[in-house]
Amino acid sequence: MNFKEQLSEMAELVNQQLDLLVPVKDNKQKVIYEAMRYSLLAGGKRIRPVLALAYADILGVDRDFVMPFACALEMIHTYSLIHDDLPAMDNDDLRRGRPTCHIKFDEATAILAGDALLNKAFEVMSEACNNMPENMKTRGIAMMAQVAKCSGSEGMIGGQVIDLDSEGKDVDMDTVLTLHKHKTGALLTAPACIAVSAAGMEDTIEAEHIFEYSEATGLAFQVKDDILDVEGDTEKMGKAVGRDAKQDKRSMTVLIGIDSCKNMLDELTVKAVKCAEFFGDKGNFLKDMADYLLKRDN
Amino acid sequence: MNFKEQLSEMAELVNQQLDLLVPVKDNKQKVIYEAMRYSLLAGGKRIRPVLALAYADILGVDRDFVMPFACALEMIHTYSLIHDDLPAMDNDDLRRGRPTCHIKFDEATAILAGDALLNKAFEVMSEACNNMPENMKTRGIAMMAQVAKCSGSEGMIGGQVIDLDSEGKDVDMDTVLTLHKHKTGALLTAPACIAVSAAGMEDTIEAEHIFEYSEATGLAFQVKDDILDVEGDTEKMGKAVGRDAKQDKRSMTVLIGIDSCKNMLDELTVKAVKCAEFFGDKGNFLKDMADYLLKRDN
Repeated sequence: MNFKEQLSEMAELVNQQLDLLVPVKDNKQKVIYEAMRYSLLAGGKRIRPVLALAYADILGVDRDFVMPFACALEMIHTYSLIHDDLPAMDNDDLRRGRPTCHIKFDEATAILAGDALLNKAFEVMSEACNNMPENMKTRGIAMMAQVAKCSGSEGMIGGQVIDLDSEGKDVDMDTVLTLHKHKTGALLTAPACIAVSAAGMEDTIEAEHIFEYSEATGLAFQVKDDILDVEGDTEKMGKAVGRDAKQDKRSMTVLIGIDSCKNMLDELTVKAVKCAEFFGDKGNFLKDMADYLLKRDN
Repeated sequence: MNFKEQLSEMAELVNQQLDLLVPVKDNKQKVIYEAMRYSLLAGGKRIRPVLALAYADILGVDRDFVMPFACALEMIHTYSLIHDDLPAMDNDDLRRGRPTCHIKFDEATAILAGDALLNKAFEVMSEACNNMPENMKTRGIAMMAQVAKCSGSEGMIGGQVIDLDSEGKDVDMDTVLTLHKHKTGALLTAPACIAVSAAGMEDTIEAEHIFEYSEATGLAFQVKDDILDVEGDTEKMGKAVGRDAKQDKRSMTVLIGIDSCKNMLDELTVKAVKCAEFFGDKGNFLKDMADYLLKRDN
């Protein structure tokens, strides 16, 4: 199987689980399930859960063991998009090629669907811990605690706050890097935290390489997003482009220019590939993933 | 110590913990901590965490063991109020006697502060589980899983959805009861779930009485809220009254009349007191609590 086939196979595994974890319901609150599913099953790239599975493969952890946590990351990512798109936030109409949640439903439903997805992520992780054999529960709890930290006010939400606060302001590169490290970086590092804790391999040389890979690709992901916001195509992206300049946000392309961004992206990719090579042939998927994230057009 | 002194001592213990768990921060995202603290430390009644401590006392569980979970409930309750007050939801300006979070800050910050409090609740519970001795972790996980269920789309959020969906519609008593059972009942039952699991006393006669008490007071709480919305005083309540009729919501007073509501409240209180009496003298605090919830004017 080549990389693209592996990637879509893993994404499909994740999609099947998400479909089971947030089912269609026929009760008085069924609209919340419709809204959750509308945004969750809209065909995102599933980068975060796929990375969690890929790291698990490398560290010799059963995919089934990390799957609920991998799915929780996608739920958290999706809820953050729903809330980010709200009129009071980025006010976006288009996401993953479809009307955003508050356009398709209404604002109140979108707020609650986001809340429900965040809550569901922790329901799923708690249940997974509940079902673990006694001697694995410590690992499960560590995994959940790390997800909670990555998604909270010292992680992703912190980044969203810095982002809001930076709008229309003169901000320096330090602030922009802090912003990205939190807003997108934290949840892109979470898959590494999950897999390393699942393996019980904290403080090993393997963990070090996984974390370095995950930080490099996490930042590369955001640099690429900023480049795509300038050079990308709305149709391919499935969301509006050119918004950073329009909203006077300090994206990295505005701050250091698009050429420097491209150099930075190349350097980060080289670094990530090097980390992947540490694992020999087992690192091939991660190598290809770094390359895929470099070249993606959506 | 009389009941009021006990109540305020327990609420004060909770307040001290909440203050520690959501500290003032001086980083780039410090505004989120200000907003979280603004709403969280606004002097609510702390009914949910106090009930968790009271049930723990009765079942012989160390208060310190349940405290993080009790605080998590208050964080979840507060986040739900912040989001409920948003313009797209109930559009309220006043809460706990002060401007609502989105009035004091702005809508985007209020959305994120709510998200951050929900996330923080699970950070706190995961950390608590992390710190438990091996042989108690199973109980910790069970406690967290139950909180997650009570606050999610089959619990509190489900109730908010039914509430939204019922606005301006002809709804029946069955729907209104389902609404209340979810919207306020679920999180008022959570303290019982926490304490019973902390004690490892699922399926005991004691648990049965705790759950029955908690369901009766949970519904009584909402009936009283509906009565106060008609007869209450804005100043004492710390929030706008008369909103149910204004928004044409199907509150219980509209549906069955205020006299029937008062009868229902009395019956539920008698039922709760009977459950409390099962525990003899140890049940005195719960007995007084049922009476307090019956007579409260805010």
